[in-house]
Amino acid sequence: MKSTRARIAIDAMGGDHAPAEVVAGALRAREELDVDILLVGDPQQIQASLPPQANVAALRIVPAEGTIEMHEEPLTGLKRKPQASINVAMNLVRQQQADAVVSAGHSGAAMAAALLRLGRLSGIDRPAIAVVLPTLIAGKAVMILDVGANVDCRPKFLEQFALMGSVYSQYVLGVADPKVGLLNIGEEACKGNDLAIRTHQLLQDNPVIPFIGNAEGRDVLSGQFDVIVCDGFVGNVLLKFAEAVGSVVLQILREELPQGLHGKLGTTLLKPNLRRIKQRIDHAEHGGGLLLGVAGICIISHGSSQAPSIFNAIRLAKEAVDNRVLERIQASDPHTPQGTVSSDARGEE
Amino acid sequence: MKSTRARIAIDAMGGDHAPAEVVAGALRAREELDVDILLVGDPQQIQASLPPQANVAALRIVPAEGTIEMHEEPLTGLKRKPQASINVAMNLVRQQQADAVVSAGHSGAAMAAALLRLGRLSGIDRPAIAVVLPTLIAGKAVMILDVGANVDCRPKFLEQFALMGSVYSQYVLGVADPKVGLLNIGEEACKGNDLAIRTHQLLQDNPVIPFIGNAEGRDVLSGQFDVIVCDGFVGNVLLKFAEAVGSVVLQILREELPQGLHGKLGTTLLKPNLRRIKQRIDHAEHGGGLLLGVAGICIISHGSSQAPSIFNAIRLAKEAVDNRVLERIQASDPHTPQGTVSSDARGEE
Repeated sequence: MKSTRARIAIDAMGGDHAPAEVVAGALRAREELDVDILLVGDPQQIQASLPPQANVAALRIVPAEGTIEMHEEPLTGLKRKPQASINVAMNLVRQQQADAVVSAGHSGAAMAAALLRLGRLSGIDRPAIAVVLPTLIAGKAVMILDVGANVDCRPKFLEQFALMGSVYSQYVLGVADPKVGLLNIGEEACKGNDLAIRTHQLLQDNPVIPFIGNAEGRDVLSGQFDVIVCDGFVGNVLLKFAEAVGSVVLQILREELPQGLHGKLGTTLLKPNLRRIKQRIDHAEHGGGLLLGVAGICIISHGSSQAPSIFNAIRLAKEAVDNRVLERIQASDPHTPQGTVSSDARGEE
Repeated sequence: MKSTRARIAIDAMGGDHAPAEVVAGALRAREELDVDILLVGDPQQIQASLPPQANVAALRIVPAEGTIEMHEEPLTGLKRKPQASINVAMNLVRQQQADAVVSAGHSGAAMAAALLRLGRLSGIDRPAIAVVLPTLIAGKAVMILDVGANVDCRPKFLEQFALMGSVYSQYVLGVADPKVGLLNIGEEACKGNDLAIRTHQLLQDNPVIPFIGNAEGRDVLSGQFDVIVCDGFVGNVLLKFAEAVGSVVLQILREELPQGLHGKLGTTLLKPNLRRIKQRIDHAEHGGGLLLGVAGICIISHGSSQAPSIFNAIRLAKEAVDNRVLERIQASDPHTPQGTVSSDARGEE
């Protein structure tokens, strides 16, 4: 029988700061969020990472052997190490012992393990990695997908991303009337590269997708759009740039603010405000990417994740579980959207 | 006989704030930079934009009729209006009466006019728009190209961009040993979309290009790279995003800084510092894009340009003229780089 609390399997061995920071983030989530935690990895190392006062009884440790290293080719690694933590974590979801996986390990391996062990949702050709970023409008977020799973896309992939994104926006982020945009280099339908022009047409013709038009680079964080679709190459470049810009700005503030006596005094007075600004710009806050389109909920966190990122990733997973995002996507029936039988609907794979 | 001062033809009718702001920027450049200015456009409107104290004798007004409107299809517009300001400005360069063109008008029309009236440099298949952005390392800039001229690229186009960029970096920006990067989603040669993987190989094999590897989104502003090449779709998205981020950050500062009594006091003390930060982040500072690969120097400024942007664009043009960037590019002989006869070297156009 399925628990009503979201059960999150954590790849305790994945990431630059595993297992210590991963375990710390998981423990905090266990305390502050209404979730069950399954820590997947080497039991001895996990035990050693637990603080003395940890409530060990409330935790479940699921043993695994090894992890996929960053230099390993995902498929080879996953096959050579069937008991690797990411494989074991995905199996927990497959066997309905967990509802979601969070991993800060090798992201290609996490994606491949999800595809191999969970499979794709029906009607989805390619899963996408989605991130939710804050916008200029306080309290309003934008979901961007794909940010790295598919570097060469066909128009129908982006159409499916739009569908999944709008469902997520509506049911998880609670946007009553989500607005979908296509990342492009101009407002007009005729603008863009071949992929963008053909995708624009598909989105325009799909009555299920609340498409409002092209989003230029300057519109991404404007708050005008709730969902923005793009191929994984552009999306990844944009996301990494956006994350870095946070640090760039913080560094400029550090360099520029303390000049002169007034500057130094001003900076001292502003310390608490600067901390808040850092929080608002810092990428650790968004927790990670959501792998949308596989038959399970998977959060792919940064390799550099520390406890706060892991905590946010677990919250993201919990929200996706609680709001039954997979069922919603499946119910929206992307398999047979009207009017989309196009020349590129070849059945490949 | 060619003047030794750079002679800059300004499309006085191009841009949202033409002619007033364009003329104002040109006048300032005339005062502060060692350049000759040719204002191209409707003489009456230009005269009306001149402040009463302007030294009219030092200015040359070249009459033109009309301008290409933003909604016009470039080629149609250029043919229908042979006397449009952008056509007349390009003709001045063609007839060696000017050394460079600056326009804040329809950027597609400026590009098309340059191609039609000036032609391409030998060995260049596609001109690219390049921008120079500040980096985290004070005083160090990065040139990014293409940011919008070519939305669908072939590997050899990017190879040519790399060549033009490294010449520009060396001779105009004065970087002794420019480092060229390929915008990509990972460090390894095997990473990226089809275009990136094939371009990586070409750049690696070209002994003339100082290629140091892939640049991820997070590396763009790091200062590690002097030149970063990408297709015009990704580049345009990135540039517009980067420009917008400046405003986003300034807005967050405005919203977050003044909280609490200490915050308010701190903000007051910091006013001059905030102005400096704005200057460092604001996109108006970079002046515009340089159209590289046509047989003439053309600066394409923002449609929203006001006098400071126009001034910076004119400075950019002057630097390109003074450093003989076209001759340098031509001398680097991109026409026959060794080892680049690839399957995509079809002679088209």
